[in-house]
Amino acid sequence: MGQNLTTRSQDYSKWYHELVVRADLAENSAVRGCMIIKPYGYAIWERMQAELDQMFKDSGHSNAYFPLFVPKSLFEAEEKNAEGFAKECAIVTHYRLENDPDRKGKLRVDPKAKLEEELIVRPTSEAIIWSTYKNWIQSYRDLPILLNQWANVVRWEMRTRLFLRTAEFLWQEGHTAHATKEEAIEETMQMNEIYAKFVEDFMGIPVIQGTKTESERFAGAVETYCIEALMQDGKALQAGTAHFLGQNFAKAFDVKFANKEGKLEHVWATSWGVSTRLMGALIMTHSDDKGLVLPPNLAPFQVVIVPIFKGEEQRKLVVDHATKIYDSLHAVGIRVKLDDRDTHTPGYKFNDYELKGVPIRLGIGPKDIEKGSVELARRDDLTKSFISQDKLEIHIKELLKEIQNNLFDKALQHRDQHITSCDSYEDFKKVLESKGGFIAAHWDGTTETEMKIKQETKATIRCIPLDFDKENGTCIYSGKPSVQRVLFAKAY
Amino acid sequence: MGQNLTTRSQDYSKWYHELVVRADLAENSAVRGCMIIKPYGYAIWERMQAELDQMFKDSGHSNAYFPLFVPKSLFEAEEKNAEGFAKECAIVTHYRLENDPDRKGKLRVDPKAKLEEELIVRPTSEAIIWSTYKNWIQSYRDLPILLNQWANVVRWEMRTRLFLRTAEFLWQEGHTAHATKEEAIEETMQMNEIYAKFVEDFMGIPVIQGTKTESERFAGAVETYCIEALMQDGKALQAGTAHFLGQNFAKAFDVKFANKEGKLEHVWATSWGVSTRLMGALIMTHSDDKGLVLPPNLAPFQVVIVPIFKGEEQRKLVVDHATKIYDSLHAVGIRVKLDDRDTHTPGYKFNDYELKGVPIRLGIGPKDIEKGSVELARRDDLTKSFISQDKLEIHIKELLKEIQNNLFDKALQHRDQHITSCDSYEDFKKVLESKGGFIAAHWDGTTETEMKIKQETKATIRCIPLDFDKENGTCIYSGKPSVQRVLFAKAY
Repeated sequence: MGQNLTTRSQDYSKWYHELVVRADLAENSAVRGCMIIKPYGYAIWERMQAELDQMFKDSGHSNAYFPLFVPKSLFEAEEKNAEGFAKECAIVTHYRLENDPDRKGKLRVDPKAKLEEELIVRPTSEAIIWSTYKNWIQSYRDLPILLNQWANVVRWEMRTRLFLRTAEFLWQEGHTAHATKEEAIEETMQMNEIYAKFVEDFMGIPVIQGTKTESERFAGAVETYCIEALMQDGKALQAGTAHFLGQNFAKAFDVKFANKEGKLEHVWATSWGVSTRLMGALIMTHSDDKGLVLPPNLAPFQVVIVPIFKGEEQRKLVVDHATKIYDSLHAVGIRVKLDDRDTHTPGYKFNDYELKGVPIRLGIGPKDIEKGSVELARRDDLTKSFISQDKLEIHIKELLKEIQNNLFDKALQHRDQHITSCDSYEDFKKVLESKGGFIAAHWDGTTETEMKIKQETKATIRCIPLDFDKENGTCIYSGKPSVQRVLFAKAY
Repeated sequence: MGQNLTTRSQDYSKWYHELVVRADLAENSAVRGCMIIKPYGYAIWERMQAELDQMFKDSGHSNAYFPLFVPKSLFEAEEKNAEGFAKECAIVTHYRLENDPDRKGKLRVDPKAKLEEELIVRPTSEAIIWSTYKNWIQSYRDLPILLNQWANVVRWEMRTRLFLRTAEFLWQEGHTAHATKEEAIEETMQMNEIYAKFVEDFMGIPVIQGTKTESERFAGAVETYCIEALMQDGKALQAGTAHFLGQNFAKAFDVKFANKEGKLEHVWATSWGVSTRLMGALIMTHSDDKGLVLPPNLAPFQVVIVPIFKGEEQRKLVVDHATKIYDSLHAVGIRVKLDDRDTHTPGYKFNDYELKGVPIRLGIGPKDIEKGSVELARRDDLTKSFISQDKLEIHIKELLKEIQNNLFDKALQHRDQHITSCDSYEDFKKVLESKGGFIAAHWDGTTETEMKIKQETKATIRCIPLDFDKENGTCIYSGKPSVQRVLFAKAY
């Protein structure tokens, strides 16, 4: 038996798409570029949301909700931000349909119901939020404002891929306002740190923290911090960003506060977000040719119990016993599912839960009951063993932790094996084509060089890592002096 | 001191708007008809969401996410549904902005980026979801499908009011698919029952369950079940609806399943939803001229502790003591806030928490510490008392339950006092104008009569209550025979 998925070595991109669809995570919809997040995929996203939401609240943030639409005049107020998103905006121009006189039973846009001012479906909410903060902020006593919202946003992408790049996606966006530059920078770094912690500890994905180069910065930001992860195919994926926006939006929307001395100053801003794109990072970090592999923290079900029986008499015996095991695991807070359907064979179920990445599968039949054991299959390393039913819940709890750690360690090992230092452009190109991954190389700091390298190799600067030592060197492309290595990679 | 809110007797509508804005629940935005839900209001909505979400999951439903946009051709497939929403749709026609050659730094819609097919911003998601279910359903084994989504929807309302009627609002919409009519009806009634339980037990708002008349039914439904609540001003508010959709959407989107005998049948459907409108119901049921009154279940903070002190020495003593009380309440799961800011006076804080409806306020100063007591103020009945600090957490836990029950009882009493039986149209009109509330009256069952009464009095049939006894009578308007009283009211 097997999943008959395209393998990663055959076609990584096809493997990814098949896995997403067949593991019931998401699928394409009737709307160009928009996806449907299926219940199993959404349950994983809900686990991410719950954890992140708690981390935001623990660090002093509250949730709020701002409108879906941005009037064009507000949208264009911060010029760089507007320019950055103008080419991928869904635009509402009318507010009514009418019967189509030429096609019975059909509707058409009512030309009389044209909006005076077009509305942009938010690609990000700085504009609508800062036009609101203007009314909320008068004095230093009104600061800081520490808000987040969970929302859908729309960016009209031409080439889309499930979770990685879709026209509509779900995300959270934090928007904070501060009295000083220092405080805003501190907030930006704190949020990037929170993202790193979440992605590493909860999702089991190692990341590198850094800042973006000018050309890769968020439109309207002074500095963009990011966390960068490495996928199995050697391509990088930006997993989250936190932006120090300086006073750009405060100036665009004229948001000033009276400081303690009564003097008016522009407010300092940050924004930060992660999205359903994290689902893509999850899949491409841990999964294998048999399907999804879920870290226990993210698994909607951490354990599935499959009873194995023939005939009604055995069925009752085995299901009763399996129910007791279910109860003992459930009682200690393990997310467990008992699949006692008799419409599907155990073999079918084994395959299905393998495809869906359930961390631990327990199989139990009449012989196991006699022996007081269960068959335990681990999804992460595909090993099977028979273990005693005695103190099963303690054993499983430990094992879930072990699996969580094992997945992180495996990913970390892969990532660390794929950071290569290169000191010449020849070497750089060779490593990029043969091995892939991150390349740590000297760069002269100019956008010109960055763009040339991108044109010639498709590699971009993923980040200027925060924890790389200063080190004098020469740019691999221009030969000009450099003070630090940066990380290049091909990226999603 | 006082809140200086417009009073309810002065102008109920103005009181409502002022309260919503001043208690930091929501405000109007720069986008016509769209509101901003502020952190305090959103925290209440989050509590509703968490409770409802658990109730949905406990009854076997899962969450998923479907696209924001509906292509026009899908939107118009179910004709009644399309007709019902056609006049209030936001329509996306373009996907790109470009620089405006005539106005430097400004943008305009790029006429070359016109969509081939317009996209409707979902006013409700039956169309996009049933076009998807078509691919998910082949056999009876694929049924039932029990899904819910938390989402934003847009209905282009001409006259909007914060929470009650906004162009964009937040809601949940359940969409289920079933093999039989009976099962779908059972699901519809179950969800209406769940809504009733939630609104009564959790929000403290008594409701009447019933079905809608044909003219008040959801566009595309065969039967609409609803829960109706009565506001303080004697107007009714529809708090939630559950629709039995028959096979209308299955036929519009050609969704069939093979039954156990292998015969193809159309699938049966339901949908059900509640929205941020519930915030309006909450406010207009419990609040008073001093501001919001929150049932403890919904309060972001159930208890606020305000330390009262003069000078630094007292401050340390009192805040230390207040912190101990905070810890003891927090430890038993009470949502408690300690407001030890020294930038605001106790008087200011008392006013603010009164306005914001915090159920219990504890005041503590040096004398209270000496006596081992605290001053406790209840928001629901505005009483104050001194109580012992001994076993405070047990006392408060009990009191929170008592307040929750008291609010429900008060609302129930008001509601029951405002259900009047009328047997003549004269009497009906008199009661409607003088007393308001629900009027239980006989109706001949025709839309014609319903419309005439509506035109003449502005009262509509809120529902045909499920638990009213059959009773022969004559229609108050036409004098024709009737078999049951229905509930009329003016409504939000």
